[in-house]
Formats: sequence, structure tokens, C-alpha cells
Amino acid sequence: MAHSTAQPDSAAHLVLSLSCPDRPGIVHAVTGTLARRGGNITESKQFGDSSTGLFFMRVQVLTTVPRVELEKDLAELAGEYEMEWSLDEVGRAMRTLIMVSKEGHCLTDLLFRARSQGLPVDVVGVVGNHETLRDVAEFYGVPFHHIPVTKETKEAAEAELLGLVDSLNVELVVLARYMQILSPALCERLHGGVINIHHSFLPSFKGARPYAQAHERGVKLIGATAHYVTADLDEGPIIEQDVTRAGHEDSVSMLQAKGQDVERRVLAQAVRWHTEHRVLLNGHRTVVFA
Amino acid sequence: MAHSTAQPDSAAHLVLSLSCPDRPGIVHAVTGTLARRGGNITESKQFGDSSTGLFFMRVQVLTTVPRVELEKDLAELAGEYEMEWSLDEVGRAMRTLIMVSKEGHCLTDLLFRARSQGLPVDVVGVVGNHETLRDVAEFYGVPFHHIPVTKETKEAAEAELLGLVDSLNVELVVLARYMQILSPALCERLHGGVINIHHSFLPSFKGARPYAQAHERGVKLIGATAHYVTADLDEGPIIEQDVTRAGHEDSVSMLQAKGQDVERRVLAQAVRWHTEHRVLLNGHRTVVFA
Amino acid sequence: MAHSTAQPDSAAHLVLSLSCPDRPGIVHAVTGTLARRGGNITESKQFGDSSTGLFFMRVQVLTTVPRVELEKDLAELAGEYEMEWSLDEVGRAMRTLIMVSKEGHCLTDLLFRARSQGLPVDVVGVVGNHETLRDVAEFYGVPFHHIPVTKETKEAAEAELLGLVDSLNVELVVLARYMQILSPALCERLHGGVINIHHSFLPSFKGARPYAQAHERGVKLIGATAHYVTADLDEGPIIEQDVTRAGHEDSVSMLQAKGQDVERRVLAQAVRWHTEHRVLLNGHRTVVFA
Amino acid sequence: MAHSTAQPDSAAHLVLSLSCPDRPGIVHAVTGTLARRGGNITESKQFGDSSTGLFFMRVQVLTTVPRVELEKDLAELAGEYEMEWSLDEVGRAMRTLIMVSKEGHCLTDLLFRARSQGLPVDVVGVVGNHETLRDVAEFYGVPFHHIPVTKETKEAAEAELLGLVDSLNVELVVLARYMQILSPALCERLHGGVINIHHSFLPSFKGARPYAQAHERGVKLIGATAHYVTADLDEGPIIEQDVTRAGHEDSVSMLQAKGQDVERRVLAQAVRWHTEHRVLLNGHRTVVFA
Repeated sequence: MAHSTAQPDSAAHLVLSLSCPDRPGIVHAVTGTLARRGGNITESKQFGDSSTGLFFMRVQVLTTVPRVELEKDLAELAGEYEMEWSLDEVGRAMRTLIMVSKEGHCLTDLLFRARSQGLPVDVVGVVGNHETLRDVAEFYGVPFHHIPVTKETKEAAEAELLGLVDSLNVELVVLARYMQILSPALCERLHGGVINIHHSFLPSFKGARPYAQAHERGVKLIGATAHYVTADLDEGPIIEQDVTRAGHEDSVSMLQAKGQDVERRVLAQAVRWHTEHRVLLNGHRTVVFA
Repeated sequence: MAHSTAQPDSAAHLVLSLSCPDRPGIVHAVTGTLARRGGNITESKQFGDSSTGLFFMRVQVLTTVPRVELEKDLAELAGEYEMEWSLDEVGRAMRTLIMVSKEGHCLTDLLFRARSQGLPVDVVGVVGNHETLRDVAEFYGVPFHHIPVTKETKEAAEAELLGLVDSLNVELVVLARYMQILSPALCERLHGGVINIHHSFLPSFKGARPYAQAHERGVKLIGATAHYVTADLDEGPIIEQDVTRAGHEDSVSMLQAKGQDVERRVLAQAVRWHTEHRVLLNGHRTVVFA
Repeated sequence: MAHSTAQPDSAAHLVLSLSCPDRPGIVHAVTGTLARRGGNITESKQFGDSSTGLFFMRVQVLTTVPRVELEKDLAELAGEYEMEWSLDEVGRAMRTLIMVSKEGHCLTDLLFRARSQGLPVDVVGVVGNHETLRDVAEFYGVPFHHIPVTKETKEAAEAELLGLVDSLNVELVVLARYMQILSPALCERLHGGVINIHHSFLPSFKGARPYAQAHERGVKLIGATAHYVTADLDEGPIIEQDVTRAGHEDSVSMLQAKGQDVERRVLAQAVRWHTEHRVLLNGHRTVVFA
Repeated sequence: MAHSTAQPDSAAHLVLSLSCPDRPGIVHAVTGTLARRGGNITESKQFGDSSTGLFFMRVQVLTTVPRVELEKDLAELAGEYEMEWSLDEVGRAMRTLIMVSKEGHCLTDLLFRARSQGLPVDVVGVVGNHETLRDVAEFYGVPFHHIPVTKETKEAAEAELLGLVDSLNVELVVLARYMQILSPALCERLHGGVINIHHSFLPSFKGARPYAQAHERGVKLIGATAHYVTADLDEGPIIEQDVTRAGHEDSVSMLQAKGQDVERRVLAQAVRWHTEHRVLLNGHRTVVFA
């Protein structure tokens, strides 16, 4: 069923995203469950990946039935079809922790978009391994936590970070040009919940100083990549990428300045899609229902 | 239901596209009809336009049921939901007539893509109001029809064209830089079946000599627009647009050369989407399930 | 002569930009003048517009000669060749006044770039016809002036604005989504010194509510245009334009959100080029030595 | 001096490109030499690379002096400044050999542009290691040479190729999706005169099957790279790159089809710039005066 303009005041607008092994009957079963609960579909996309045999679906639905009942039905369906699924309110702001070092372009951009452009994040804290960006966080009314990291203190620092994640009920961690590598254990613990922006068009120029590498190679475009963080550095599932033109006149520092524009745009796009439940994991790749 | 890798040899892969007034139950009803006929959905997209109150859907389905029976079911459903719909085989080449004047970039491109890149068109003829491009058509084994047009012969020329459309069972007419304006009567007669490429980013620079207009205005990007032809010149529903960068060094003729690249790319994309039933009319706009 | 890595500490890095009627000998005369003064050219571009018969040149030069002597030479040359010219220090921050209404994306972006990304502007004030963005200006340490505008107070408001321009020695005024139209007299008074960002790909969708117009027309790309302000609304010389992709799912408000990204990027680019003396007027068009 | 609209019929339009160690006086010396010979500069660009200490210049000049006299002057200047330089007629078609295997998109595109869009190449032959594209070459009136390559015949095949290069006075070899690797000796012999199109955004996805690698990695953009061929596979100086958007729905074969559009566009651009003497080697990078 499709979008209905008339909706009772008590209707909830929910978004269901799911993945499962592909087999006949999934769409009909899901839409049937929603229909029986009086739900009206307002947006829907499906994709079956013949290379992995997995099926993916995202559907927005208006419904007046208590959410808990819908969840009971979906849990039953999920058992039958071996689904991984999530149900959320459309537009709900996700509790987000942003981690930074000294460069402020991504942090400034995310906080501005959260305040003025409807980016559905509730930034509950900013963590910096330097004090540099405290004023930006505080201007936007967000508590700033200074957690310095050295080789000796790394374990303690990560424990402090995890403490924040727990006490603040953080759902999403965004590495907004955070220049530290998370330990494998932390990556594992927060799997699927940490988005990083890498300042190159991956898989080109992994590791340190990608703009210097790009300058050295003489590429004619530079880019940025937003991806989920995994223990395998710069190898996590890619959510979004974009590029901008470069030329022989661009020094490394000019590439950096140009690249910052791409970085913040790509990161904001990835965060938006993630918070809207448009990104589904498909092995080490992603399905993005943009 | 979703993509099934195992399919009987006799299975047909069909594409259903439809639009109708938006109301609850459409998706479930359509997928139910397909499910009852043993169909497996391989790809599907939906869209409800709250500004027009219309609902749009495109679904690909593998089925072993005779197509005629599916059509019977769909006709019934269509009556109930006031649907406009079409059912076709996925990948079937559409019988296409290409109209040209003297510039060959779009014609060459479409014929090459049809032969080597899987563009699903069966080019049954090329019509030129000049002889210039006869050799290109004939190299690709397509009959070339020279139908010159003057003010005096325009009516007869359009009659001859319509004769070709009928005798060749033409489904799609592509104006590949055809420098004549079709009469309102002809536009009406072929409504929704004629795609034109306009060499500007509409609605900028309608009418004649758009590159000269663009040069005069000093724009920093030039573009091209593929649209359905209507009696209202350069006002038909837009299917696709793209741009490329221009600068102060570009003369009008350099803009033309740069623009040809955009024109042929945009036209080929529009033709591909149309032949794959991905473009649905939404008043004077389009829905494109790309 | 070209870039010399060895330079005395006392060397000034200057940028000369000029335009004049095209005739033989200009480049040699200019580089000769610079050479006689011991100047080393670090970057240079020239362009002769055969359609207007004008010649344009921008050259960066390292020199140890007092600037005043160079200016004397150039003044003499300028007389001979009927040149309009300017000489400035490379990288000098231009005294800039930013005007806003309620939307903060362009203001936030410009202030951030000025502070952290080397945009060579010294923002000496922000003028708003609403109080909305006072906090943003003040966070960046810039005085905010509230000058409300009504039909009745418009003349007084413009007088107040001109007073600020004079008392603050403003060199550049940036309309960063300022939703008021400047009077022809003010446009004339500040000719060549006011940059506006229009939220459409001009000349499409002039005037009010361009995103609503774009939605109505069903375009597949939306854009933004930075241009010098003239008395002829939305017809001033274009400095920079860019676009982003739109689709049938985008409501007017979604187009607005997408468009804001393009607006701020295009405006910042235009401001950077202007302050680096890379934009020269060529009638109602521009030459941009990017 | 700049563009002069009045020129004697006997005037030649020449393009001089040069590179040399950077030091004061180069631009003035070159423009002085041209001025003494009555030359009018119509276009000029310079660049000094502070990281390599090299200076690059490209200048177009109208002159009535016999070319041989200008060459004498330039040779003298070149000695003094240790210049590498070339002098050619603006717009002269460069004698070009195109090498192909089975895919025809790049060949078709280059031949069409040479015939109809002013690409300044005189295609004197097409070499294929398969017979597949003979008809395309012959349609455009270009002799086709079938030189099959196996491990055993590779040396003989390269000798035959070199024979063609010599007997046809070939100035430029274009590998238009030629699926063979040239031997180091051949790369050395033709250094700076062979352009290849690689079907990925280098340095990502070097080697074989880049679209399969791109699919496997789940990138969101695919690209193509035109570069000079060196003995170091896929590591030659990059001339031009571009990308197009990809998504989770794109199979490897769909990536290939999308990528072909980028490949032919990037290759044609690189060939145009090379033949217009806009590309200068700067170590293992390029300077492109676009």
C-alpha cells in the first residue's frame, strides 16, 4: 500500500530495514504483515544481491497500531526468514558522539547541519584528544571531553571513551578527522556503529598522509571516503565517496584545503544515510537505499 | 518475494510499470497478484507523490505462468485501482526510429551502443532531412530514409514519417539532433513516444542557438536535456540532464564541441531508461526509477 | 622570468591584474617592467577575447623594489596601453562585510573558512535584517549590526549600510543569502564590489522561490550561481556556478537542503577568486584565472 | 603581446611548449624573442614547480617570420636556459596509430572525433591483435593491420609494430583498450609517445580486471585514467582521470558498461591535450595547460 495523505494524529511513522537470505515471498510477507496492522507504506526499496544470495529491504510505514505489536509480528516473521531487522521512528535523532583531533571542518559542519539543516543526530558529546575544538562544541551547546592519547595511555583512554558511550547511551560514533587508530577490541565492540572519514578515494592512498601521496602520484582528482570502522585499517565497508578536481598547480596544502570540502560533504551524507537506516551491511560492502 | 537464482528454463522475466491514484493497499495487492502466479520479484521500486496524489511502481518478476494469464489478473487489478500499466519482457529491444539532420554524434553513439553495449533498441530506420548521415546508418545496417523538409513540404513530410512509424511498427522515435520542429498534431499523435535532446540545461536557453546564448550570458557550466516532445516547444517532461564545465576561453564553437559529449551521454541515458520502462509520466514531470 | 626559490626576506609577493584593449606587445611590456624592477614571476595567465577585443592578464611577482616605484612604472604603462589595473599583496585579507537574513549556512561557512581554511577575508562586520544570526557572528568575534528593512525604512537602512561601508573601509560586500534587493543607486555606488549567491542555476529560475520553480519544472539537477550585483536583478556578471543531482523524490524543502550545500560552496569559491584578484570584468561577463 | 585580430594571410599560428630549470628571466626572454620576430601571443600559460625546481610554459604565437628563423633563435635560447622545447603549427593533425583488441568504444569514439569534432589526429593505421574491429577502421577509411600476439610471437609482433611506426612516420601511439602489455624495450623506445587508457581510477585497481576488483571492494565511484606508458605497468605519468557514480545494484558487467563511457571520454581528452602540446612531463607527473 502506498502513501496516504490522511493520517490520524496518533499515527506513528516508522522505518523498517531488514536483510535475510533471498527466497520467494519476502516482500509479500512483509507488506502483508504491515497491511494487517493497517500500515500505509510511504516509501520502499528492495534489492537482491545475486552474488551473495542476500535480500535487502527498507520500508517506511504509517501506522496507528502500538509499535510493540508490530514488533511482535516482525519478530515472528524474522524467525521464519532468518532476518536481521530494525524498527525505528522516521526522523528520530540518533544519539551521537563525535571524535576529533585538531581540524574542525567536519565537526563544524556536522554541528551546523544538526542545528539548522535537519541532520537527525542528537550530538551528546564531542571527544577530542586535543583541546583545540572545545570552543566549537560549546558554541553549539555540546559537552566537550578532553581525552588525550599517548602510547602509554591508549588503553585507559579507550576505557574512558567506552564509559562515555555507555553512560550517554551513544548509538553512533563519528570519527570526524580523529587522528588516532582505534584498537581492534574497540572496533569489535562498536562494530557497525562507528563511521570514519578517510581523506582519500579508497582504496587509493591508505594510511598516513594521503594528500602527500596523491600529490606525489600526480592524480587529477582527489577524494574522500566515509566507511564503517573495522579492525582492518581503511578496509571497512564503504558508505559514500566523492572527488574533486586537482591539477599540477596544487601543492599538498592546497590539496588538503580542497579535500576538506569533499571530506565534510561525504561524511555528512554518510551520517545522514546511516541515521535514516538507509545503509545495510552486505558482507564487507554496503547496500545504500539513497 | 525476491530474487531466486534457481529458475525453470521456461521462466519469463517481465517488467511491470504502473501509476494510479495513491491509496492504501496497492503494493500488497500487486505483489499478491504476482505471488499467486508464482512470480519472484527481482527488483522493485515505489514512489508516492504527495503533491499530485499519484502512486508509481516498477517491478521486475520472474514467472512461469503464461503472460496472458498474468495480464488478465493485472487488467482486473487495474480496473479496481484505476491504474495505467504496461507489461513487457525485461531486456526486449524496442523498435526505434532515429531522426537526424547533419550532426552525427548522437546517431553514431546510439547505433554503437545498440550494437556493442546492450542498449535495448532495435533501430528499424534512420530518417534524415539531409543525406549527410546515410553512410553512418548504412554502416550499422540500418535503412536510411531521406525526407527533406521545407515550409511547403512539411505536411507531406510528416505524413511520410507517420507512414514509416506505422509500417515499421515503431514504438519509440528519437530526435537525435533533428533540427526541425514537429507539428502540434504530430506531437499529439506520438505523445509519450518521442524523446528529444535539447542542447542546453533547460529551462535556460530555449529555442535556437543555445550555445550562442550561453556564451553571451557567460555561464560557467553548459548542459543538455533529454525530454519527451510535446506541442509546447522545449517544455516537455524532462527525463535527464547533465552539465560540463565551461570558461572564459571557450568560444561558441568550443562550447558546441564540449556540449556534444553531454548531449550524446544524456540522450543515451534517457533512451535506456525509457526502453527499460523506468520513466513514468507524472503530469508534466517524470518519475525515473533509475 | 619564473619562480625563484631564493628570495630575500624583504621581498614582497605582489599580484598584478589588468585589462586593456588588445594589441601587440602587452605581455612583453609588462614582463619587461617587472624584470627591470628585479621581479620574479611566480604565476601568470593571459587571455585575449577576440569577441570583445580586450586583453586580460594576472601575474604574481616577487620583488624587493619598493612597491611605490613599481606603481609609478605601472601607471606609466597603463597610460600607454589604456589599462585598468590593480596591484595588491598576495594573500592580503580583504576587508569584507557580510549581509544576511535568517539562513546561516553561507555565513557559517565563510566565517569558518576565514578562520581555519585561509580564505583571505577580514570580516569586519555582519549586517542582518534580522537578529537570527547574531550569535554566529559573535562566536567568530565579528560585530553584528541589526539593520531591519521595511518599505518605509529602506532608504535609511541603505544609508546606514553605506555608512558602515565607509567607516569600516569595506572593500567587498558579500550577500550571503540576504533576502533584500539593493536599490539601483546602491548597486551603482558599490559596482564590482558586491557578490551575491543566487539559489538557482542562472539564467534559469530568476527571482523568488527558485527551488519551488525547479520542483515545478521537474529538473534533474539544481544549482547555484555567484555573481556580481548590478541594478539588473539576477543579471550581473557570473563568477561561478555549480549543480547537484535532484530526483522525483525531492520535495521543495529537500531541494532547499541539497541546494544549500551548493550555495555555500559556490559562494566561497567566488569570494576566494575575487579576493585573490582572479576575476576580471569583461563587459557583463567575467574572466576567471582559476 | 596579445592576440591581434588583423593578421597577414601569410602568418603562421605556432605553438611553443618548453620546460627548463626555473630561474629569473625566462618569460621575458621568451616573449622578447617572439616580439623581436614580430610575433603576437594569442594564448599563454606558465607554471613553476617549487617541488622540482622546473619551469613550464606553453605559448601560441602568430608570426610572419619564416619558422626556421624562429627555430634558430629558440635553439640559442634553449642552450642558454637548458630548455626542452617543441615548436609546432596550431591545429596540425598528429600522425597517430591506434591499437585495439576487441572492445570498440574507444576506437569508434576517436575515429568519430577525428572526422567530425576536430580532434587533431591523422589516424594513419589501426593495429588489432584480433580482427574484430577491422570493419570500424575501414568504415572511417583507415587501414587495419592484424598483428596477433602470443607468448611465442610477441617479439616478432612488436618488431612488426615498430616497422609500422617507422614506415608510417607515427608520432603518437594510442592504446585504445589494447589488452597486451608492451615490453620494457618498446616502452623505452616510444617513451612519451604512447598513451594508454586504464579502466580504473589509478592508483586503485592496477592490473587485471579492475571492474571486478571495484565491485569486490564496494566502491561508490568508478573511474578511468589516461597515462603515458612506461615500463612500470600502470605507473606512468597521469594525463587525465574522471569518475562516474556506481551503486550496490551494479554488477561487474554493469560497471564495465558505465565505465566505457568514462574511458572513452578520458582517453579522447588526453589525446586532444597531447596533440595540442598542452601536456608536459614533470618527472613521473604531468603539467597540463588545459
